[in-house]
Amino acid sequence: MSCALVVLSGGQDSTTCLYWAKKHFDKVRALTFCYGQRHIREVEIAKELAEEADVPWESMDISFISQLSPSCSLTNLELNIEEEKREGDPYPTTFVPGRNLFFLSIAAIYARNHGIYDIVTGVGQADYSGYPDCHDSFVKSLNATLNLAMDEQFRLHTPLMWLDKMQIWALADELGVIDIIRNNTLTCYNGIMGDGCGHCPACKLRREGYQKYVNSKD
Amino acid sequence: MSCALVVLSGGQDSTTCLYWAKKHFDKVRALTFCYGQRHIREVEIAKELAEEADVPWESMDISFISQLSPSCSLTNLELNIEEEKREGDPYPTTFVPGRNLFFLSIAAIYARNHGIYDIVTGVGQADYSGYPDCHDSFVKSLNATLNLAMDEQFRLHTPLMWLDKMQIWALADELGVIDIIRNNTLTCYNGIMGDGCGHCPACKLRREGYQKYVNSKD
Repeated sequence: MSCALVVLSGGQDSTTCLYWAKKHFDKVRALTFCYGQRHIREVEIAKELAEEADVPWESMDISFISQLSPSCSLTNLELNIEEEKREGDPYPTTFVPGRNLFFLSIAAIYARNHGIYDIVTGVGQADYSGYPDCHDSFVKSLNATLNLAMDEQFRLHTPLMWLDKMQIWALADELGVIDIIRNNTLTCYNGIMGDGCGHCPACKLRREGYQKYVNSKD
Repeated sequence: MSCALVVLSGGQDSTTCLYWAKKHFDKVRALTFCYGQRHIREVEIAKELAEEADVPWESMDISFISQLSPSCSLTNLELNIEEEKREGDPYPTTFVPGRNLFFLSIAAIYARNHGIYDIVTGVGQADYSGYPDCHDSFVKSLNATLNLAMDEQFRLHTPLMWLDKMQIWALADELGVIDIIRNNTLTCYNGIMGDGCGHCPACKLRREGYQKYVNSKD
């Protein structure tokens, strides 16, 4: 009986991974992190998505990571999220340094407690080249580090690593869940479900990918 | 101006590292983690040790790691600490899986916020071969992972990696602080300073090393 844990944020990418995991593993669990997100509604949405997918779900409070990065706009409401980059800072303000390091490390410990060694994450480097902790080399290095840290054989799966947003929509369609992804997930930085506010960077990227995919089918 | 961050628990090993860092770097800071330790007094002791060494000190609450490992005796008062191993479990009950993964990852983010890229930790594999996250291969792998996660060049220093307890006492003596280490640090699992309770595994290891070192000088 193969078993996988999906790190589920409730966005397009991780929800697509949830259904990818359901196709490739006999049993799937989902874990959602609360870390002082701007939109706590994300956690509720993740729960509803897991229920819809008939997958056991838990959330875990890791708000300590907000302490570590006081200047990040996703966890600090005083910053203007529209202003994507600060002067002299190579990363967008939404960048929590090392965020995926913690997400995946905690996911590995949680998975191990459930006898699970396959962990699925929606990180990818096609659309997020500015985030070093979404890169393939980082995930592979972390995989080796986790195995050494706990003397186990974890496998970190990144089905979206080399896919752009258009290809992620294509994957959702192939998995038969494009409507669930389109209507029930939350990617928008302004907290609006589905197609979102339409003008934040996450909405733009999502919409452009969707339009490209729909056009490619014509 | 070289600058290092020392992860300081207030025990023999990390306090020896604090003085090792003071010798090798122009400026030193110390960081102590609170994580639901059995003896919160450890944190106070670490603070006093940093003051004595004239080193800026901060503590950080990372008690979330207790959530991750409900069966660990250092963070769960209901377990009997004397009973070193549980049946069928290859690790002592004091083992928090992946503990050093979190300590060093958080230390790296904290250090980066202070413009510090040299991090000193007292982990070593001579006396703790049962803990995979004290092994040299783990620390080196984590160093590479941290650099990839944040696109930085951290250096994790482990001056005690290959030293046994006797050699750690010798290092303290060489650094001119053997009395501080002997009297003001806390290694004992039962929370007693200096020579400790005398019968827990940590006290035994510490005392045997000290006696060997004293004998070696005769």
